[in-house]
Amino acid sequence: MTHTVVSSATKEMVIGFDRPFCVIGERINPTGRKKLAAAMAAGDYSMVEADALAQVEAGAHMLDVNAGIPLADEPRILAECVQLVQSLTDVPLSIDSSIVAALEAGLAVYKGKPLVNSVTGEEERLEEVLPLIAKYNAAVVAISNDETGISEDPDERFAVAKKIVERAADHGIPACDVVVDPLVMPVGAINEAGITAFQIIRRLRDELGVNTTCGASNISFGLPNRRGLNAIFLAMASGAGMTSAIMNPLHEEDMLGIRGADVMMGQDPNCARWIRKYREPTEGQDTARGARGERGERRRRRATA
Amino acid sequence: MTHTVVSSATKEMVIGFDRPFCVIGERINPTGRKKLAAAMAAGDYSMVEADALAQVEAGAHMLDVNAGIPLADEPRILAECVQLVQSLTDVPLSIDSSIVAALEAGLAVYKGKPLVNSVTGEEERLEEVLPLIAKYNAAVVAISNDETGISEDPDERFAVAKKIVERAADHGIPACDVVVDPLVMPVGAINEAGITAFQIIRRLRDELGVNTTCGASNISFGLPNRRGLNAIFLAMASGAGMTSAIMNPLHEEDMLGIRGADVMMGQDPNCARWIRKYREPTEGQDTARGARGERGERRRRRATA
Repeated sequence: MTHTVVSSATKEMVIGFDRPFCVIGERINPTGRKKLAAAMAAGDYSMVEADALAQVEAGAHMLDVNAGIPLADEPRILAECVQLVQSLTDVPLSIDSSIVAALEAGLAVYKGKPLVNSVTGEEERLEEVLPLIAKYNAAVVAISNDETGISEDPDERFAVAKKIVERAADHGIPACDVVVDPLVMPVGAINEAGITAFQIIRRLRDELGVNTTCGASNISFGLPNRRGLNAIFLAMASGAGMTSAIMNPLHEEDMLGIRGADVMMGQDPNCARWIRKYREPTEGQDTARGARGERGERRRRRATA
Repeated sequence: MTHTVVSSATKEMVIGFDRPFCVIGERINPTGRKKLAAAMAAGDYSMVEADALAQVEAGAHMLDVNAGIPLADEPRILAECVQLVQSLTDVPLSIDSSIVAALEAGLAVYKGKPLVNSVTGEEERLEEVLPLIAKYNAAVVAISNDETGISEDPDERFAVAKKIVERAADHGIPACDVVVDPLVMPVGAINEAGITAFQIIRRLRDELGVNTTCGASNISFGLPNRRGLNAIFLAMASGAGMTSAIMNPLHEEDMLGIRGADVMMGQDPNCARWIRKYREPTEGQDTARGARGERGERRRRRATA
């Protein structure tokens, strides 16, 4: 059974088909978040701090850290954020950048074994990133596109993933340290995006035996009720063999999808996590919730009748 | 591609892997509904009428009709309900009874080609029900248990289903007219119930090529937030190859699972049904909905700024 083992200084996280789904918090990322980008560029990491703590509190098993701010000193900022987040939480991190120097700066200060996000099938990228992964004994997200872009053909996307796994092996990186991102497209634009993703994920599990991840919210781009659709996608992807996702753990519906999938995949023993999360409120919690409180009330009345 | 074609007097419904998931409304069933049972036994079918209309309105593609009331004249009541429901709606029905005489009474008055719920792998049941299915050219739900009960071994449940499909063929009933119910157990009692169900469903699709159904809400029996869990189960089951379910279409979350699964399986062209259901309310709908209304408001303000 494939296990991708990542760690912080004090905590190990195992990604695998026989493990609960791994939630990688996506929030520490200035892309599309102007306030966060401005604060990070100015050396104010208070939002990074808050995002780190809130995501772990909400159930993230790992945190993605990205410092992609145009014209900023990304390597320095990423390294500082990695150190800050590691000082606040014990979950393993995903060091996320499109700039190789930033990845190296993050790796140099990281305590434990991180995930590196990401390498693609592009020749230049493979030759730059894979030696770093080997040098720092990290795990890596492998995105299944190459110089020709993102193929709509699942077989081609699978082939790119296979190539990356093979090239990683050439650098001494085992397949268990390659977590493939099959690239999930918006289903509002490409109607077959869901079923295509599931097909690739299943092949990656059955034929390459690798763990998988994705930027989950991309599936629902442009559609209404995105969180409802994300929840369904995440659960179905888990059923197809996906073992982690870069997602927003603060979105309750997305997390319901993960929790439900864990129950369905037999990864929530005795449904203990599900029950703890969703059981009827006990006294003292009642006030905030109308209907649920009423039900609790009725039950207590019966119990004392 | 396997197509199970059922019909009413005027409407055809196709169950298949390349079709939207078929929702079979479960509400017309006096089991566990004392008021409904008493009313039906007394010849008052007003609740049956209301249940029929509400379920179709909520999106049911078919309706299950069951008249299992202890000591009542089940064949007569079932036949009367079948006629009543067929006079009210044009969706095809599932004629549901454990009493063969009741199935025959329902079949005798039915207009179109119904689903008959159900036959099991028990020898006596096979010999009683299959000739009826052949005689009335119906489709049948095949429940994968036999004299030995419900096996926890997925291979044995698959073997029972295979036996029923073969026995149906002996009676001239094609595999496309057998819809297998793999028997979904409560995941709160049997932790592997979800993954076992998905395995059987996938084998039934890949090896026997048959459509499948189940009593979906059984999965969440005894657990909190049943509807959330049902939604996740239904979507994951659809991903594994399940093509219909006997379920409550009045439960909005369960239906979200179905709608999301249709999007993900490429069975909602241009996501049109999803968008129609979940798009932001337009003016005039705003008043009833707090947060969504506010968002609509803000958008309009921007548009006119």
